[in-house]
Amino acid sequence: MLPTAAMAGNAETKGGLKITSDDGNFSGSLGGRIHFDTYLFDTDIEDPTSTTDFRRARITLKGNIYDWRYVLEQDFAAGDTHAGFRDVFLAHEFLNGEVRIGQFKPFRSMSEMTSSNEITFLERPFSSSTGLFDGHQFQQGIGWTGVLDCFTLGMMAFNLRDAGTPRNEGVGASGRLAWHPINTDYKTLHIGTSVSYENANQDSTDILAEADYAGRRGPSQLMALTPGDLGGDVSTVGLELAGSYGPLYLQAEYAIGDFEGNYYLSEFDYEDWFGAPAPFSCDPDFGCFIGNQTVHTWYVQGSWMLTGEHKTYNVKRGAFNSAKHTGNGLWGGSWELTARYDTMENRDYDFLEASSTTIGLNYYANSNIRFMVNFIFGDDDFTGDETNQLGLRAQVRW
Amino acid sequence: MLPTAAMAGNAETKGGLKITSDDGNFSGSLGGRIHFDTYLFDTDIEDPTSTTDFRRARITLKGNIYDWRYVLEQDFAAGDTHAGFRDVFLAHEFLNGEVRIGQFKPFRSMSEMTSSNEITFLERPFSSSTGLFDGHQFQQGIGWTGVLDCFTLGMMAFNLRDAGTPRNEGVGASGRLAWHPINTDYKTLHIGTSVSYENANQDSTDILAEADYAGRRGPSQLMALTPGDLGGDVSTVGLELAGSYGPLYLQAEYAIGDFEGNYYLSEFDYEDWFGAPAPFSCDPDFGCFIGNQTVHTWYVQGSWMLTGEHKTYNVKRGAFNSAKHTGNGLWGGSWELTARYDTMENRDYDFLEASSTTIGLNYYANSNIRFMVNFIFGDDDFTGDETNQLGLRAQVRW
Amino acid sequence: MLPTAAMAGNAETKGGLKITSDDGNFSGSLGGRIHFDTYLFDTDIEDPTSTTDFRRARITLKGNIYDWRYVLEQDFAAGDTHAGFRDVFLAHEFLNGEVRIGQFKPFRSMSEMTSSNEITFLERPFSSSTGLFDGHQFQQGIGWTGVLDCFTLGMMAFNLRDAGTPRNEGVGASGRLAWHPINTDYKTLHIGTSVSYENANQDSTDILAEADYAGRRGPSQLMALTPGDLGGDVSTVGLELAGSYGPLYLQAEYAIGDFEGNYYLSEFDYEDWFGAPAPFSCDPDFGCFIGNQTVHTWYVQGSWMLTGEHKTYNVKRGAFNSAKHTGNGLWGGSWELTARYDTMENRDYDFLEASSTTIGLNYYANSNIRFMVNFIFGDDDFTGDETNQLGLRAQVRW
Repeated sequence: MLPTAAMAGNAETKGGLKITSDDGNFSGSLGGRIHFDTYLFDTDIEDPTSTTDFRRARITLKGNIYDWRYVLEQDFAAGDTHAGFRDVFLAHEFLNGEVRIGQFKPFRSMSEMTSSNEITFLERPFSSSTGLFDGHQFQQGIGWTGVLDCFTLGMMAFNLRDAGTPRNEGVGASGRLAWHPINTDYKTLHIGTSVSYENANQDSTDILAEADYAGRRGPSQLMALTPGDLGGDVSTVGLELAGSYGPLYLQAEYAIGDFEGNYYLSEFDYEDWFGAPAPFSCDPDFGCFIGNQTVHTWYVQGSWMLTGEHKTYNVKRGAFNSAKHTGNGLWGGSWELTARYDTMENRDYDFLEASSTTIGLNYYANSNIRFMVNFIFGDDDFTGDETNQLGLRAQVRW
Repeated sequence: MLPTAAMAGNAETKGGLKITSDDGNFSGSLGGRIHFDTYLFDTDIEDPTSTTDFRRARITLKGNIYDWRYVLEQDFAAGDTHAGFRDVFLAHEFLNGEVRIGQFKPFRSMSEMTSSNEITFLERPFSSSTGLFDGHQFQQGIGWTGVLDCFTLGMMAFNLRDAGTPRNEGVGASGRLAWHPINTDYKTLHIGTSVSYENANQDSTDILAEADYAGRRGPSQLMALTPGDLGGDVSTVGLELAGSYGPLYLQAEYAIGDFEGNYYLSEFDYEDWFGAPAPFSCDPDFGCFIGNQTVHTWYVQGSWMLTGEHKTYNVKRGAFNSAKHTGNGLWGGSWELTARYDTMENRDYDFLEASSTTIGLNYYANSNIRFMVNFIFGDDDFTGDETNQLGLRAQVRW
Repeated sequence: MLPTAAMAGNAETKGGLKITSDDGNFSGSLGGRIHFDTYLFDTDIEDPTSTTDFRRARITLKGNIYDWRYVLEQDFAAGDTHAGFRDVFLAHEFLNGEVRIGQFKPFRSMSEMTSSNEITFLERPFSSSTGLFDGHQFQQGIGWTGVLDCFTLGMMAFNLRDAGTPRNEGVGASGRLAWHPINTDYKTLHIGTSVSYENANQDSTDILAEADYAGRRGPSQLMALTPGDLGGDVSTVGLELAGSYGPLYLQAEYAIGDFEGNYYLSEFDYEDWFGAPAPFSCDPDFGCFIGNQTVHTWYVQGSWMLTGEHKTYNVKRGAFNSAKHTGNGLWGGSWELTARYDTMENRDYDFLEASSTTIGLNYYANSNIRFMVNFIFGDDDFTGDETNQLGLRAQVRW
């Protein structure tokens, strides 16, 4: 706290702490979230461990200081505090939006822009950092995001790291444009696109795409890679189409990623990393040649609010939120039936394709508390594994 | 914080932050504790390092949302944020108590149910996770605790892990019943019992009982073990008798643990783990046979409030709190003289027995601040070590 | 939070959270800071990685409980929560000051006493724990600090550790006396001195002096060492002279450290640790003799508030704060031009000398937000390296 006298203010709570100064120039808040999961596996070739797990346990400090604001968010479920950095930035109002400096998400993929409190399923689809942008959910740099008319824009230039990644000289940039020509209390239409470019450099780690096709803590299939220490780069482009109509909601994305490469992996490393032998002949001296790889991924997901509520659209994010709670349903809650098909494919290696089919049910006890069930049917064409998961979540945010 | 407008509320403080909404439906608070210790050893065979140490440095977020509540507690003194998870759960009112989902303490041992802010000595006795339930203080699962008439009940089914333990398929359950037939402002009588069962499974770590007979950071004697990777199990039963009469307080527990086993340890490993050679002959080919082991532990502890205050009974926990502060004594504080005898024995190995005798003095500066001195006389029959400790604590909670 | 009813209170904010009870006996607050840096290197012999980095990301809990107070500060930028302990102590009012128990900074070096939110440059000079007291910024123990007339005093006896250092039996003590014969709204004169003694013992880590002569995350030159496991000790004495006159400010320190030693390093280790071969002949059998070493370090730094403000003097700390914000300058901010020369030398080894010349510019957007640019010209005489750094910082505190 500053040594100077703080401003008298008003206290509020919805389960957290918030104080706003009487003159409106200052505010501070302490929020958070707990996502507690249980994973039960129907194992196949792979034998993951069924267990309970804290998916997220975050504290979120936010504040406004005149036309500036800050966010400091730490996820204790990450194990060490570097890996636990989430949104940590300073922002200044600019052009009906804000300039951000620090760590935040590059603007790409509608599913990535959706808060983890609002995602329809336990995990995001492969078009996000849960797949195509593996481990690159948050990056450090400078960007701007704002809303102009019925367009939501975002752009960021970044150092190829978050607080948990080794310091390195890799760089990247991304931009996203979302258009919502229709957005009423009853129906929304969303069309979007994003592009991203990442360039590894001194001390960069490898850039990967991975598919966790049987849910969190299940098996993982490496889908593409380019080495950081050889200065590889990755370019992606994505398209988004989504809409809601009363209690119905549908969302789809298609994304393509180009992983630039030109090097050899030993046969042993290939099998070790990809989980199966190379589906092409390797050079006995040099090993298996890894050239440019193109990854395609797409998903379609939808839901039906059984209790009749309508999923709302978050204009600032250009993404859907959960429906507004009404308490009409069983146990005074809202109920949502959900389904998704999600797939990712490396077009340069035969059979390097994984997909995930999910059906689920969400129960919203109130605006802060949600319970989720997901049945996830995994399918890895490369290894032949067909592990399935029953995933459960108890979620509270404040 | 939710994007929706928070409820106007009332701010309060006793050193922390608390806001309650005007309609009483919501509240949020930020509390915490610091326990700063100094350990000075009178070393014997063992030579532990005398040092200062933060025993606890926690932040505690709590909130109420209608008939739900959450707790998110992190102990920075644990080193990494996984190990730092303490109470982290979501709860719903149910039957004059609450159903909890997440991480919390299994209901077993009166000393375990006592908050670390309220324990009479620097450390809990061997009947708790400081001994019989080594490292299993918090587990993840679902449970219920409540008060029915003059009974305090608790039961929990859990995955054999906390957030700092590897994911595994071990399971367990525990239940506790406490009865306080007498509980007035002047005297309390408490009788209690608890049972617990833990079953290791895929990826479980070993289940151990250990005795830190010369205080924290002093030497530790392994008392029993069953291996997690062989699917061992442990059953325990405990009895509690406690009471207070004016400024006097007395508490005792007796607990028995059955460690199921049927395997061999090499002679080297036996001596390495237990600190002394096996007290029986080992097979030259297979090593030292470890069969079922039965551990008995009991303690008697008491205190006398020199300044006349009365230790209060916490009905929700079924355990004693510190006395209510009056400020009658020297330096405006309350003073408490304390003593404990604590012992644990493995009945299947000769001389595998350790005990700890403690005398101490507590000074309560006010309701938030306490200073403690403990003289701990350790005795390990198995190794012959008789290390002693002088332990000091400065404690603040808010 | 205590189970007893908290006191009704008043809420305030300057970007954080603060509640004070109506009777003034209690208060609690949640503050914090984010320092986000970018380092770009003009590399020479050394080739450090240009990158972005969170220099600090802290939460700070403070509270008052009658005539006691606590501070619990955790820096998530440290990676693990032990290393993240900053000020974590309990204090009691005593003699126009306070007695502290726990972890805090030993009282030595004016630059060390200056808050990281208030330092004129990105990093502190070599007279602090950034050089002479390498890694010994915070220690655990007991101390007193207070203001008597125009004197600021501080003294501390400590265990040679912070929460991130291994437990050990090393001890130390330090004391500082600062005198401000002049301190008006327009001009201040400060004269100070401090002494420190550190004695390694069982399990102590080595005691080092190091010079990060090209900024944070740049190359580092070992300047002196004495081994912890041989029980070495280090004595230091420092002198301070500083003043401000309107928008001008000047500060200088001179410190001498005696590193006691009497042992041999292998030629390989010498070159590995010091970055260049020993500048004296080593014994072929025993290696390079390390005797007592005397380190001298001094710096002169100054600044000119281009927008005319005056840097204020913090009497409690005996150190300068940033100027009070007026908003007179470009972009509604205050602007400060800064320069420093900083050098450290081991007088017992030829050429073991490193220096750092910095010029910089600070922009204060308001009382909470600051942006900094530093051009740092490094010079290591021992290795011949002349790496330079351009460092940038975005800083917010609340």
